[in-house]
Amino acid sequence: MTISPPASPSGSAAHSGKPPAPRSLGAKADKDTVRRSNLSLVLRAVHDTGESTRAQVAARVGLTRAAVSSLVEQLLEGGFLAEYGKTFSGQAGRPGTVLKVARTGVAGLGVEINVDYLAVCVVDLAGTDRVRLTEHLDNRTRRPSDVLCRVAELALRAIDSATAQELRPVGVQLALPGLISEGTVRHAPNLGWNDITVVSRFHRILAVERRPLPPLPVSADNEANLAALAELWFGDPQETPRSFLYLSGEVGVGGALVLGGELLRGAHGFAGEIGHVVAQADGPPCRCGARGCLEQYAGQRALLRNAGLDEDAGVPGVVELERRAVDEDGPALTALYTAGEKLGLVLSGAVNLIDPEAVVLGGAYRGLAEWLVPAADQVLSERVVSGLWRVGSGRVRAASLCTDAARGAAAQAVQAVLNDPLAYA
Amino acid sequence: MTISPPASPSGSAAHSGKPPAPRSLGAKADKDTVRRSNLSLVLRAVHDTGESTRAQVAARVGLTRAAVSSLVEQLLEGGFLAEYGKTFSGQAGRPGTVLKVARTGVAGLGVEINVDYLAVCVVDLAGTDRVRLTEHLDNRTRRPSDVLCRVAELALRAIDSATAQELRPVGVQLALPGLISEGTVRHAPNLGWNDITVVSRFHRILAVERRPLPPLPVSADNEANLAALAELWFGDPQETPRSFLYLSGEVGVGGALVLGGELLRGAHGFAGEIGHVVAQADGPPCRCGARGCLEQYAGQRALLRNAGLDEDAGVPGVVELERRAVDEDGPALTALYTAGEKLGLVLSGAVNLIDPEAVVLGGAYRGLAEWLVPAADQVLSERVVSGLWRVGSGRVRAASLCTDAARGAAAQAVQAVLNDPLAYA
Repeated sequence: MTISPPASPSGSAAHSGKPPAPRSLGAKADKDTVRRSNLSLVLRAVHDTGESTRAQVAARVGLTRAAVSSLVEQLLEGGFLAEYGKTFSGQAGRPGTVLKVARTGVAGLGVEINVDYLAVCVVDLAGTDRVRLTEHLDNRTRRPSDVLCRVAELALRAIDSATAQELRPVGVQLALPGLISEGTVRHAPNLGWNDITVVSRFHRILAVERRPLPPLPVSADNEANLAALAELWFGDPQETPRSFLYLSGEVGVGGALVLGGELLRGAHGFAGEIGHVVAQADGPPCRCGARGCLEQYAGQRALLRNAGLDEDAGVPGVVELERRAVDEDGPALTALYTAGEKLGLVLSGAVNLIDPEAVVLGGAYRGLAEWLVPAADQVLSERVVSGLWRVGSGRVRAASLCTDAARGAAAQAVQAVLNDPLAYA
Repeated sequence: MTISPPASPSGSAAHSGKPPAPRSLGAKADKDTVRRSNLSLVLRAVHDTGESTRAQVAARVGLTRAAVSSLVEQLLEGGFLAEYGKTFSGQAGRPGTVLKVARTGVAGLGVEINVDYLAVCVVDLAGTDRVRLTEHLDNRTRRPSDVLCRVAELALRAIDSATAQELRPVGVQLALPGLISEGTVRHAPNLGWNDITVVSRFHRILAVERRPLPPLPVSADNEANLAALAELWFGDPQETPRSFLYLSGEVGVGGALVLGGELLRGAHGFAGEIGHVVAQADGPPCRCGARGCLEQYAGQRALLRNAGLDEDAGVPGVVELERRAVDEDGPALTALYTAGEKLGLVLSGAVNLIDPEAVVLGGAYRGLAEWLVPAADQVLSERVVSGLWRVGSGRVRAASLCTDAARGAAAQAVQAVLNDPLAYA
């Protein structure tokens, strides 16, 4: 869930990240509303196709060529679109000028706070990552306000780099591993954060640092949600279905559900908590307070521990685990097989309930998928009633991208611009 | 998933059960399309409010009073609306004529084929059930074609009764306990049906019997889906949230997910199979081929067996179980507590994943909820990370209606009319 900061200058509608609700054909939409909506329609048409002529846009959105030309003019003036020479379609008629979304101007800033790293990313209107800064450190041992100040410094450096590229971030999206609602981290067991008002705090820090510039709107969302959106938007289009369950195998096992190209957030914004689905009712105690959660078998720490590695070794530990698996080290293979079985067990329940097209393994799971998938596939083939999840079906697969919640967050911040460019002109 | 029968006269769009996709404001909607869409808008406005004046409809849908009057005229002529005298708003201005949806004319026919009964239901445009016929028999021992002929006889009798009430069923929706796609029961373990083309078969039987009348379009859906829609549409509005997980505790434990007032069907139409989510990995074998599915602990047969009753006793057995629980019979209470615990375990996973507002217990669970809920609540309070599912939170609750997949099916058949009344004028 994303919310406006108290002092947001541009109103919540401008950065809620959701497209405006479609209006009925019969609704009395005033002229200004129609034009704003049509500007978004045209900008999205160019954005979604990568490049288009005015005629192609007109055909795609179902407006007249004249109307599209007028809208394109306004978008060119506002700096949202740019012209890139002529195209020859090979068919009769005049060549058209190619339109693309601008590579300068408005941009989105994504800020990820994770258990053992901070990352910031600036993407342009096309979603290309133009700035990226990462810092590895253990955030479990630091106070939330220290972490927020530290990541704000990183964000300010990213904004400077963006400015040097003539990019102007117009919104910030925070990504955090935990339950988030109304701009507050309600519960992030692996960070040890409870009821931390991250959006208002980060907004305040950034506003003070950037004076006298106007403050930027800030939102927050779960990192697995944003990593799943990054996979949906930027992953291999052949490999990425429109409905999938995404797993981010980090210190915690995060999850997100994308259904028909949309994130399923749940009634309170807390959907996707697959790491705390029970794998074995009488299993070991979990940080969440329950026992035998999936995280206790397939989380990064459990994987490393079961393979005979230091459970707190983080990313280097995962790299070492992968190396040992390649070398067919017994404890490593056993740890991965056990984790794969428990993954399969929990995923079989999720698949029976939600019926996605695929399960996409991100984060640390991406590199380990080769060893996790066979065991998971076996359990899924036995337990999914539809019979569609056979061994070797390829439905459980590695993500096509490295987990990238920061880029997903930055791209999410750009959605607000695509929804209503006029608000950012 | 619902599909058209091969010989459907009115086209798939007319009875897909889904509202037409919203068109962008910029789309070149031709005049006829706009009028059809506006007719649906006005008919739905009256349908959803129960009764409205023209002025109230105009305010609700955002059209001018003149446009609404013209649309209402056409809907009155087509027999979709009826006028019911004057209303005095207590405010200045002329009294308006009250509009309601017509109690005669187009209607929907729902046909439920379940393990131990057949049921048919005719509802009018308002969703009121006007005809209802039920027959108890064991369908597990009968061939699918015999069952379909038998239920077709029941359907024809229902159509006759509807005709006598000046109702004209314009579409048939089948409800069956199993995985259904493209008009075919792929797998219904408790009926023992696999790959039965129910829609085309039922369509043929009905068409032959009704000659020379034109054939009716037929669709099919999972019975838990349709029971959940019945609960959503006709349940106590105070008690029925917009996002809930519905459980139908019949011989099989069916499930359905309603999110934001819409059924979640999944990528292949197979979502909601909670009965086959694992409760204990090494548990007893299930009809689906796996072990330890929820159905093996909380299905009707397991409940009756564990309480020391005949596992095949069906509805009378459930009534006896409830009686014994009231009398505080030890084995009955233990069986219910155990089932409630396993329900809680599986539901905790579902809640962590999907984050619904509530879990609604239908079917046999409705009468047994008093004994199932405390154990389920206890497990949910321990295992749901959001902390929202505390003991006594009331989030796990009995359905406000008796399970009624037949009425849900009939009402679903009526949706097609609400979406495009002109197609049925």
